[in-house]
Amino acid sequence: MAASRVPVALIGVGGVGKAILQQLLSAPLASKFNVVLVANSRLSLSLPLPNNAPLTEGNLAPILEQHGQALDVTSVISLLANHPDGKGVLIDSTGSDVVPSLYPTMLAHGVHIVTPNKKGLSGASSLYDAIQAASYPNSKALIYGESTVGAGLPILSTLKDLVGTGDEIERIEGVFSGTLSYIFNEYSKPEGSNVKFSEVVQIAKNLGYTEPDPRDDLSGTDVARKLCILARLCPGAPVLPEGAFSVPTESLVPPVLTDAKDKDEYLSRLAEGDEHFAKLRAEAEKEGKVVRYVGVIDLKAGKVECKLGKYDKDHAFATALKGSDNIISFSTKRYSPRPLLIQGAGAGADVTAMGCTSDLLKVYERIRY
Amino acid sequence: MAASRVPVALIGVGGVGKAILQQLLSAPLASKFNVVLVANSRLSLSLPLPNNAPLTEGNLAPILEQHGQALDVTSVISLLANHPDGKGVLIDSTGSDVVPSLYPTMLAHGVHIVTPNKKGLSGASSLYDAIQAASYPNSKALIYGESTVGAGLPILSTLKDLVGTGDEIERIEGVFSGTLSYIFNEYSKPEGSNVKFSEVVQIAKNLGYTEPDPRDDLSGTDVARKLCILARLCPGAPVLPEGAFSVPTESLVPPVLTDAKDKDEYLSRLAEGDEHFAKLRAEAEKEGKVVRYVGVIDLKAGKVECKLGKYDKDHAFATALKGSDNIISFSTKRYSPRPLLIQGAGAGADVTAMGCTSDLLKVYERIRY
Repeated sequence: MAASRVPVALIGVGGVGKAILQQLLSAPLASKFNVVLVANSRLSLSLPLPNNAPLTEGNLAPILEQHGQALDVTSVISLLANHPDGKGVLIDSTGSDVVPSLYPTMLAHGVHIVTPNKKGLSGASSLYDAIQAASYPNSKALIYGESTVGAGLPILSTLKDLVGTGDEIERIEGVFSGTLSYIFNEYSKPEGSNVKFSEVVQIAKNLGYTEPDPRDDLSGTDVARKLCILARLCPGAPVLPEGAFSVPTESLVPPVLTDAKDKDEYLSRLAEGDEHFAKLRAEAEKEGKVVRYVGVIDLKAGKVECKLGKYDKDHAFATALKGSDNIISFSTKRYSPRPLLIQGAGAGADVTAMGCTSDLLKVYERIRY
Repeated sequence: MAASRVPVALIGVGGVGKAILQQLLSAPLASKFNVVLVANSRLSLSLPLPNNAPLTEGNLAPILEQHGQALDVTSVISLLANHPDGKGVLIDSTGSDVVPSLYPTMLAHGVHIVTPNKKGLSGASSLYDAIQAASYPNSKALIYGESTVGAGLPILSTLKDLVGTGDEIERIEGVFSGTLSYIFNEYSKPEGSNVKFSEVVQIAKNLGYTEPDPRDDLSGTDVARKLCILARLCPGAPVLPEGAFSVPTESLVPPVLTDAKDKDEYLSRLAEGDEHFAKLRAEAEKEGKVVRYVGVIDLKAGKVECKLGKYDKDHAFATALKGSDNIISFSTKRYSPRPLLIQGAGAGADVTAMGCTSDLLKVYERIRY
């Protein structure tokens, strides 16, 4: 039963996109998927290359510059919708909100979507509803976004299984940002810590754990996006009409620094916020607790929020969590009083790519069954 | 696109079987699955009942006794293979090895299998190979056994995703038995413990955490079965020709008690083993460690084994693990140096049933795509 390979187009070839390409071109995936197009935000490259020249994630950039044509997303949709081997999959590994705005169109053409891009699934309800209306079970077009939350960790699939089998979600709580995990694991330890907040942020930045502008992590927006994606899978959760922007989100840019004009001014004045965080840490320590930046979906209270929380020193978020790992806890009717916990690297190109390629395998198993 | 419901037959209606039935008869599963037959080891009942009388997991036993026909597995296979709504699913919720011995036949007839029964997937290679040969991708027949390891926890699916996307498994290590988790979490605590081993076993038995004969848990066989199922999904793992019986397994029935003739003698003499375990605990404490009964698959060392292990007091197996939870850690090329960890209830009817019903959803999504 040698089924034809599934056509795949990859848009976005930053760190994650390159890692996806590397996995797609390797066994065991190469026998199932046929990469027909690779693109960055400007240029697209049809494959195979002339003379079947080998493409790797290493030589991609120069080949794209040399042989690439101007990217035209409409023609990419057409390519995948009309491929002789059947409907293909578009992998949106961009960080843009332009590509997600086209998801309903792609799905309406029968093109499947796999994406680590949070912008679509955590966007306004109007877009989210249009995506749902255009995809399975309302059509044959599939959309998977496992790696939008917890990278390669099985977070969305576990939540879907819980809900799909009739469990009742009571509370989802977790440390969803690798950057903020690292910062607070260093800043607030069960055994105590004296390091300054600005120092930890600077170290995190030097280690490459933060976005170029650390405020993109410290704003909490990334966590709000993940919570929004999860909440939309929970029956009875609050409706979030503006997506992530409807999630109350505590910013870790302290009041004294909100007037910083740009990244450089913010970074140079980082120490001005130290007192603010030292006070929070001291308060927690007085209660025998540590501070963690968490996302919480509380179905009983009808709340979705991102905030600094205080946790007992023997809580899993204090003791078990290390480095820049994510930890997500599901408290449900069945998983009670103790939750179902999933922990591990929640960021990084290889594990994020894995979330996408495992989604691709799920698409494959369905459309090539 | 109102697809017909998938025909399902359930054999085995103990605690887990009843919980599966309860989930199948409730929303959201009832709209996808049509329970056409329910059976225990002797009697089978065709559904719907005369006059469409309602069946619940509560009235099942008396109705089965009153209306049941002698169970004939061959005719169950025929019913599912020739159903007008297409090939059906057999749920083997028995603890027998008779039903698993028929898996290859069922699969050859196109019948899908979902099972919490470990006996088939951890049996001799000859049976396992025949199951593989008769199932997808070698045929259209699917077999899923998520709940054989960790009950409803996403253990097998995560391992399949890691392997399927090209990650390299280095080590899988975990506390796989709810019973032995409880016993050692009580017996050997990071803060120290003076309780006697025989007392903890007796409490566990009184709480219903052990099999009627606790030696069935303490032998380690159940853990060996789970390890065998996992090892067979890891490329490069040692071949286990006799299945679980090929896994070196440390028994927790101490030498002094191996001559006990039966359960009652064993239970009455339980305290004779206390010295043996007290010595192990004292040794661990001297090293600042706790004792846990673990299963380990070490791909580098080429070893699969079940044994008592010693763990640092700040190791996840010591601090994070509570009650009768399972915890399983995957160390891989990508999840390194910190592993991917999954923790939660690994036993109990509802969560084990959930492992089965989430498998059913996966079958549904593929055959009714």
